[in-house]
Amino acid sequence: TMLQCQIGLQGLSAAKLLSESGVSVVVLEARNRVGGRTFTIRNNQVNYVDVGGSYVGPTQNRILRLAKELGIETYKVNVEGHMIHYKGGKSRYFTNISPSTWNPLVYLDYNNFWRTMDKLGKEIPLEAPWDAPHAEEWDKMTMKELIDKICWTKSAKEFATFFVNVNVTSEPHEVSALWFLWYVRQCGGTARIFSITNGGQERKFKGGSGQISEKIMERLKGRVKLERPVVRIDQTGDNVIVETLNHEIYEGKYVISAIPPILTTKIHYKPELPSKRNQLIQRLPMGCVIKCMVYYREAFWERKGYCGSFIIEDEESPIGITIDDTKPDGSFPAIMGLRASKVFFHLFFFFLILFSYRKRKICEAYAKAMGMEEALHPVHYEEKNWTMEQYSGGCYTAYFPPGIMYSYGRIIRQPVDRIYFAGTETATQWSGYMEGAVQAGERAAREVLHHMGRISMNEIWMPEPESKDVPARPFTTTFWERNLPSVPGLLCLLSSTVCFTSVAAAGLFAYKKGLLIRN
Amino acid sequence: TMLQCQIGLQGLSAAKLLSESGVSVVVLEARNRVGGRTFTIRNNQVNYVDVGGSYVGPTQNRILRLAKELGIETYKVNVEGHMIHYKGGKSRYFTNISPSTWNPLVYLDYNNFWRTMDKLGKEIPLEAPWDAPHAEEWDKMTMKELIDKICWTKSAKEFATFFVNVNVTSEPHEVSALWFLWYVRQCGGTARIFSITNGGQERKFKGGSGQISEKIMERLKGRVKLERPVVRIDQTGDNVIVETLNHEIYEGKYVISAIPPILTTKIHYKPELPSKRNQLIQRLPMGCVIKCMVYYREAFWERKGYCGSFIIEDEESPIGITIDDTKPDGSFPAIMGLRASKVFFHLFFFFLILFSYRKRKICEAYAKAMGMEEALHPVHYEEKNWTMEQYSGGCYTAYFPPGIMYSYGRIIRQPVDRIYFAGTETATQWSGYMEGAVQAGERAAREVLHHMGRISMNEIWMPEPESKDVPARPFTTTFWERNLPSVPGLLCLLSSTVCFTSVAAAGLFAYKKGLLIRN
Repeated sequence: TMLQCQIGLQGLSAAKLLSESGVSVVVLEARNRVGGRTFTIRNNQVNYVDVGGSYVGPTQNRILRLAKELGIETYKVNVEGHMIHYKGGKSRYFTNISPSTWNPLVYLDYNNFWRTMDKLGKEIPLEAPWDAPHAEEWDKMTMKELIDKICWTKSAKEFATFFVNVNVTSEPHEVSALWFLWYVRQCGGTARIFSITNGGQERKFKGGSGQISEKIMERLKGRVKLERPVVRIDQTGDNVIVETLNHEIYEGKYVISAIPPILTTKIHYKPELPSKRNQLIQRLPMGCVIKCMVYYREAFWERKGYCGSFIIEDEESPIGITIDDTKPDGSFPAIMGLRASKVFFHLFFFFLILFSYRKRKICEAYAKAMGMEEALHPVHYEEKNWTMEQYSGGCYTAYFPPGIMYSYGRIIRQPVDRIYFAGTETATQWSGYMEGAVQAGERAAREVLHHMGRISMNEIWMPEPESKDVPARPFTTTFWERNLPSVPGLLCLLSSTVCFTSVAAAGLFAYKKGLLIRN
Repeated sequence: TMLQCQIGLQGLSAAKLLSESGVSVVVLEARNRVGGRTFTIRNNQVNYVDVGGSYVGPTQNRILRLAKELGIETYKVNVEGHMIHYKGGKSRYFTNISPSTWNPLVYLDYNNFWRTMDKLGKEIPLEAPWDAPHAEEWDKMTMKELIDKICWTKSAKEFATFFVNVNVTSEPHEVSALWFLWYVRQCGGTARIFSITNGGQERKFKGGSGQISEKIMERLKGRVKLERPVVRIDQTGDNVIVETLNHEIYEGKYVISAIPPILTTKIHYKPELPSKRNQLIQRLPMGCVIKCMVYYREAFWERKGYCGSFIIEDEESPIGITIDDTKPDGSFPAIMGLRASKVFFHLFFFFLILFSYRKRKICEAYAKAMGMEEALHPVHYEEKNWTMEQYSGGCYTAYFPPGIMYSYGRIIRQPVDRIYFAGTETATQWSGYMEGAVQAGERAAREVLHHMGRISMNEIWMPEPESKDVPARPFTTTFWERNLPSVPGLLCLLSSTVCFTSVAAAGLFAYKKGLLIRN
């Protein structure tokens, strides 16, 4: 029995599982490298660096298990020192997941935003967001509409927008509220998705995340064929026929399509895809992100007690969020910065001009945020613009515009005859992350094994035991976080108090003046 | 000099113009027929019938000129008799562009909707909607948000939703308000786009619209190659190299890509597309529509004085809008019906079941709307579901989800090195229609001629003289249509009147009772 897959970790994790089950596998990879949206570059200036997917954390148990099996260790990202929130020309410390603020209304508004997001998210079933009680209503709203409903203050609205930008590399007005609520929920909630410690950005892989795909490729011994973009899938015969751009023909019993939905439009199908699937794959664009690493002679930010993580809310800045990217042994001091989405609109010039100019603008933004001119003197710079990658489409993942999740979402994992769908977009936990890629790849492989009669139906979806090395702690909320009023709640409280007080005062006044006379 | 194009009227109109200018042309067509989203079927039961794009009307001067040159005549669609608006189990007459109503508030709300749509549309430049004064704001809104702002009554909101469904085969919550306002505007406004007489649905072509592409193909004598889907475009050498799915290689100086943006994702590019274009082409899905023709022994609806056009606002109905499709000589009596978009959500079962069941449901809907059981006894049925077409993606045209027009719209016609873009989606008048296809195809051809040095820059965009056979009359609005208040305007007026009256009455009362005493 043969099998074909395509690009990335999601395809390789499927191929590995099948291969270990004794199924003969061929992996067709479009690029001249494996890894897809993970990519580790090596050179003398950086040793190694992940220019794509890189971070892992607690509850991402599948990718942690897979990496461990392949002998790849994790290390904790540097969080010693203060995080900085730079906005309106000022830098403040940042704790937990909200910026600090002197304004109690803004504080209430931040608090209420996180609380409401998690509360609404809890209504949404991980594996079937389209069945949520408010699915239709929320899917007809953009995330911008939902933010405008939840948040009252400008600061909270702006930070909520930033939260969307960073997590799904797109704009609140572009995405469905249902989809974004689901997305945050399936990562374990607002704190889990957004935190470094105990969250999705807690750790990185020593030697780079790209090693995972590379080591699987080694194990598959020549079964991975590079530079073979698939152009045609023919399911009209006994075997499925797959043709690549260089005119090679592969035959097999099954195909696992392990690429983002939008990239499956690159393939010519015979027979044509079912109409719903033909529509779905047109409707899931990839997010936009550019990842930039600036290298310095030393980790000078530590001198001021900074950890190297900044949140920069400034439309002029080419970077929105950073994390210290120094190696675990302290070598190659560096700051990793991301800019998601918005830059593509407001800093249009950014893409038209020189590499060296971009590098300078980034250093200037860092110098301003830290108040340290040392940031202006990097020793090296690396960047990766994922928006121009033909065989990724963009990064990190696909987003759902309004109306798509409710109408088409339920077919996202539905096989088309002998084509099965992997890809992190089809996952139900940490979809959009490496973890989701592994979950989806292994699930698709088990769907094939089930169809071959090797495993039973209820072995397709397997729970994953928790990683012993990277255990998850729950996020607790304080009494105040749970019970403080929202801004409208406070206003309501105040106005009813004012109302009650003034009625009482008026009554007293009338009584004193003898205006209240009982006949 | 050689040149390659792809599918449809848009490619053929470009090829025709270039060929007539003495440029050597090859047209590569993915399907085994020309015409793309126009398609004329012929058989004994129907003689001929357009199952795709079909209607033309005044101000569509380019397609009218092209058809005339090819010897294809138009005829007027039957409008003798009453149009019917069926809703909530009742049929009413329908005049102009609004349903009739006994409720004056609903009447004001309809009137204000049309007036506001046209007023907002006038702000939007045809050739650069992203430069409209409110472009950014409107593009962040869905059309649903705009409808909820403009309309106050349930009836008007529902009819506005229907108006979006029918014109762009998608849902108000899926599309950008900026894009939809532009779309209506570039067709000449609400009355022009929606009317039969003097509007976009006034006429059809005798013999079918498919003849236009067929006759151009004849004139191009063997230069049109069928069943050649393009899989690869290589611009790294002196000539552009184009490869088709059947491994043929074509070389030329230029390429005109005359397919919808989303279908250009089917091609593998070398070098990769610029990042903005790589993003744009993922973000323009095609609309959803199914076109159904029911044939009867006689045009029995005329007996009740109906013209055969119904508007059916009923989620249970498989059809939303109909037009009489009887041939101009009275033969082959038929009703053409469309269902856009919504059916794909609410009538999910519709696609899972039998052809014959669909036919019966449609006849039942017609019988209810007309109150005539004759509708239940068709002699023949034809349908075309455009949502499953691999090489159209859907119909009628691409839609812009929120946020795309403002951020990416301006590159839609921007050439990528030697690739030029035709396709009705790139037109600035009647984009989405056959007229737009011709405008875009001819403009792209002239861009190539300009680059070859054969014509000057200002000859690229050519105005088109008005068709003598199909002149346009202006749509006039009455004094009342222009000046009647909107619902909130009326409420404001009423409340200020009430307020003024009651203050005056209270004053009078106080005066009479001697309560107003000047000290």
